[in-house]
Amino acid sequence: MLTIADFSQMKKMIITVAITGGIHGKEANPNLPEQPDEQAQDVYDCYNAGASICHLHVRDREGKPTGDLNKYAEAISKIKAKCPIVVQVGNGIGFYYDEKGNYVCYPDEIRMKLLEIEPKPDLITLNAGTFHFGDVLFPNSHEFNTRFVKMANNRKIPIECEVYDIGHIANTMRLVDEGALKKPAHFSFVLGIDGGIPARHENLMRLVSDIPEGSTWQVIGVSRYQFPLTVAAMCMGGNIRTGLEDNVYYKKGELAISNVQLVASIVKIARELGREIATVHDAKEYFGVEN
Amino acid sequence: MLTIADFSQMKKMIITVAITGGIHGKEANPNLPEQPDEQAQDVYDCYNAGASICHLHVRDREGKPTGDLNKYAEAISKIKAKCPIVVQVGNGIGFYYDEKGNYVCYPDEIRMKLLEIEPKPDLITLNAGTFHFGDVLFPNSHEFNTRFVKMANNRKIPIECEVYDIGHIANTMRLVDEGALKKPAHFSFVLGIDGGIPARHENLMRLVSDIPEGSTWQVIGVSRYQFPLTVAAMCMGGNIRTGLEDNVYYKKGELAISNVQLVASIVKIARELGREIATVHDAKEYFGVEN
Amino acid sequence: MLTIADFSQMKKMIITVAITGGIHGKEANPNLPEQPDEQAQDVYDCYNAGASICHLHVRDREGKPTGDLNKYAEAISKIKAKCPIVVQVGNGIGFYYDEKGNYVCYPDEIRMKLLEIEPKPDLITLNAGTFHFGDVLFPNSHEFNTRFVKMANNRKIPIECEVYDIGHIANTMRLVDEGALKKPAHFSFVLGIDGGIPARHENLMRLVSDIPEGSTWQVIGVSRYQFPLTVAAMCMGGNIRTGLEDNVYYKKGELAISNVQLVASIVKIARELGREIATVHDAKEYFGVEN
Amino acid sequence: MLTIADFSQMKKMIITVAITGGIHGKEANPNLPEQPDEQAQDVYDCYNAGASICHLHVRDREGKPTGDLNKYAEAISKIKAKCPIVVQVGNGIGFYYDEKGNYVCYPDEIRMKLLEIEPKPDLITLNAGTFHFGDVLFPNSHEFNTRFVKMANNRKIPIECEVYDIGHIANTMRLVDEGALKKPAHFSFVLGIDGGIPARHENLMRLVSDIPEGSTWQVIGVSRYQFPLTVAAMCMGGNIRTGLEDNVYYKKGELAISNVQLVASIVKIARELGREIATVHDAKEYFGVEN
Repeated sequence: MLTIADFSQMKKMIITVAITGGIHGKEANPNLPEQPDEQAQDVYDCYNAGASICHLHVRDREGKPTGDLNKYAEAISKIKAKCPIVVQVGNGIGFYYDEKGNYVCYPDEIRMKLLEIEPKPDLITLNAGTFHFGDVLFPNSHEFNTRFVKMANNRKIPIECEVYDIGHIANTMRLVDEGALKKPAHFSFVLGIDGGIPARHENLMRLVSDIPEGSTWQVIGVSRYQFPLTVAAMCMGGNIRTGLEDNVYYKKGELAISNVQLVASIVKIARELGREIATVHDAKEYFGVEN
Repeated sequence: MLTIADFSQMKKMIITVAITGGIHGKEANPNLPEQPDEQAQDVYDCYNAGASICHLHVRDREGKPTGDLNKYAEAISKIKAKCPIVVQVGNGIGFYYDEKGNYVCYPDEIRMKLLEIEPKPDLITLNAGTFHFGDVLFPNSHEFNTRFVKMANNRKIPIECEVYDIGHIANTMRLVDEGALKKPAHFSFVLGIDGGIPARHENLMRLVSDIPEGSTWQVIGVSRYQFPLTVAAMCMGGNIRTGLEDNVYYKKGELAISNVQLVASIVKIARELGREIATVHDAKEYFGVEN
Repeated sequence: MLTIADFSQMKKMIITVAITGGIHGKEANPNLPEQPDEQAQDVYDCYNAGASICHLHVRDREGKPTGDLNKYAEAISKIKAKCPIVVQVGNGIGFYYDEKGNYVCYPDEIRMKLLEIEPKPDLITLNAGTFHFGDVLFPNSHEFNTRFVKMANNRKIPIECEVYDIGHIANTMRLVDEGALKKPAHFSFVLGIDGGIPARHENLMRLVSDIPEGSTWQVIGVSRYQFPLTVAAMCMGGNIRTGLEDNVYYKKGELAISNVQLVASIVKIARELGREIATVHDAKEYFGVEN
Repeated sequence: MLTIADFSQMKKMIITVAITGGIHGKEANPNLPEQPDEQAQDVYDCYNAGASICHLHVRDREGKPTGDLNKYAEAISKIKAKCPIVVQVGNGIGFYYDEKGNYVCYPDEIRMKLLEIEPKPDLITLNAGTFHFGDVLFPNSHEFNTRFVKMANNRKIPIECEVYDIGHIANTMRLVDEGALKKPAHFSFVLGIDGGIPARHENLMRLVSDIPEGSTWQVIGVSRYQFPLTVAAMCMGGNIRTGLEDNVYYKKGELAISNVQLVASIVKIARELGREIATVHDAKEYFGVEN
């Protein structure tokens, strides 16, 4: 996809807020929402600030990531009761210490269950390849991903693909070529995870230049890389993802006081630049979310 | 030069304001300053807003670009009387209609004279290669550039190189390799001129990745490309150039009310991002400007 | 244009031999053909060795580049009498010392006359931008190029565009967008000229990735860069240009004994790699040459 | 690492032949050597043809990949009895069907044992990251790789790093930065495996441009991508890897008659291009192999 530096030719910019995540919790930033009531309030504030998609992971009573469908149901219901934001569930669930004390990823079959959440999520992510996410083996085989996509299609839940390296774009396009994943593919480029592609602007450019015309894309810049990468993406025509899942800081050494603070910062810059912000309606249209 | 997306590892960011330019005038934007008094006031306001370098072209009584040394002397004196900003003269002077009605560039020998301006400029630019700047032949031969650099060295006026395509970086490095231009070279990448490299982020990345470690760089994004490219540069560790020479609009369809408005917009974004802004002192240090 | 490394998906490879050129002559390599009889014999040998296009410049009695239409007519007639190779004339003609002793390019109007050569050339080149070709100003304005292309269209002479830097691709596409140049455009990337884009594989990759799908391309690697760049192009799906115009050496320190030696070397490698070589018929089809 | 297209500035080119591999066997090409006697004869022929490194996997009686140290010992002894070629063992061993019928990779602890082979290998590879190699999970954690490198250091066995995507270069440099892996790092870029970086020349260029100056590199082009990528690497200053492990074909639809045929083809092209071929002595020097 050839990039052009002209705001007037760019589509409206979706802001996704990843409020919670599946790794760190309140120990990293006490303002990170863990329970459904907190999450719903936070999402509502972010929606009012300009976010049109909420990326969701849930936690158990102790704040640990969980694949518990009831917890998802509770969180989604409470969010939807407050505002019409698009809710996207992350298919990785999160990492946890198993009974042997190993820090591990949830098994495939528990991840598949996410497609049975009721009320059903508006969107769901796919992790487009296997790698060590830091020290944790994060297996995302073509076989699992194919099954996951097909089931999501049956449930009419559109998919956004999380890409951690160049090869993951090819993995995604293989799903398209084999007829599982619908066109246009939607990409979320994750930069700065140990084990994935490093957080360099050159790498962002490579990823963007490899996807087909008509794809949507955003960048997930981890931690201190978030603002430099997401604002560059804003300038390049990409969508925005922000939130305490990806980055607990507002500025160097200064913890964010809320997800809203991160969203508001992005909105302020977008307004200054004249980049128009997508509504929930726009976001649904981009991704083909049913009403 | 490998890019990294981490504000905490970036140097302070110089803001250069190109207040006037050598092509369009008040007909394009009535707020563009043409005469020394206007220019001095505008520069003073920009200095107060955060600019540390003023890029200067001067105009005759009728507002046409001129190489008149007295006019430069007047403008520089008036600017310096108001504030200690670094003054950089553009070595292209500007384009004009000659007696035959052709729109042309000033001849080499008039451009060489810029090195005799008194009070001498703190900095001067070099145009690092020949091309058609739109419809105007803009000759910048290696022979002329070598003479220009050597004379600037004699006068102790540091140089910033304006680069309009990939080959111009090689032209610049040839001046370094032959001992004319001092290291580190300073680059100003101009994107979006018809005849030069197109205004695409991928091209900016290519230019940045081709220069040696330790070089400074900024991007001159022409017209509607200015904000998308300069704010991307801010995210990538580059310096900033803005001003009515490059872009007469603040937003799409909305003429800028002053150079200060463009500077203030950049400052607002930099503050939001936590990218630290260079002082005049810093700028002098980067470029080796004498006091 | 995305590159793929798979010979079985590549089109047949055209070999163009640039037998003479418009700069150096027998003083650089005594085997460089200058006069029509020599040229015709050389082309005939290259044709038998696998070349399907001959790129032609002609020389006066003293071996200096000339725009003399009679000389072109003589050379083309003699070539055509020997073999059906496609004859392409270079629109730069060549550089010469004018009456003041300056080394210069031929003026636009003499270059325009090349379109009146009879018998008409099968193909003609366009130089897609202005730059200093070493020390020589080589002006190729949009205005001149537009006129040249339109006249070539009238004469039904297809065009190949010589590109010396990234911006020249945009210049070419502007001719397409304005309706002058027919799609698909044909590109000849020249790397390694002082003043143009440097001879690095990364630059070749950038040029190739910027052109539209369906374009043909070849690389002109100057002097010692010829083999590393042309054989890389062979591996990447490009066409080949070789010949004493571009490179007078066969190997380091070893002058080529003829144009044929350079063509034969390329053919040998292509055969070893299994890259199929285009016939004259194929070459005519690629470029839309009338019979 | 900036690329330059100039054979005269390139180091001598190492040819590594990967004779056997750990995946397919004689069913793919009956000329693929499986048993030590066959392997030794094949290596000897390749050595005579110009190979200076042999990349080695061994097979059990039935031709299945095995981590059996005795089998390695036998193969290495027989190879070394015939010629002084550098022997490199691949640390992946190979994939096999486990008792449940799953196609899997050997566990870490069996792979660690490769460092105890006697006579010890001259070189050993590291797989620089985790991914699905086609359908097979291929785990190469930072923890395992760190232990492997440190043990290899103790045994004075230099390492070459197999890189399957951009992030794997960062994984490698992390081993360098943490003091485990010695500088300069040696890279083997694998393109064209499902799950890894696709076989496009642009990807090869990205990988090459990301490694530090002074590194050695080669490309492993899988199957039909082998020749287009390895010959491009030859043109770009890289080393060569070929052999039936990577590619069982000589040309499209034509099985290679031996490893030697693949080596000889590379040698023929290198000679035609004037790229000088490294000796065993040179290869030992590049990698710091003890005598």
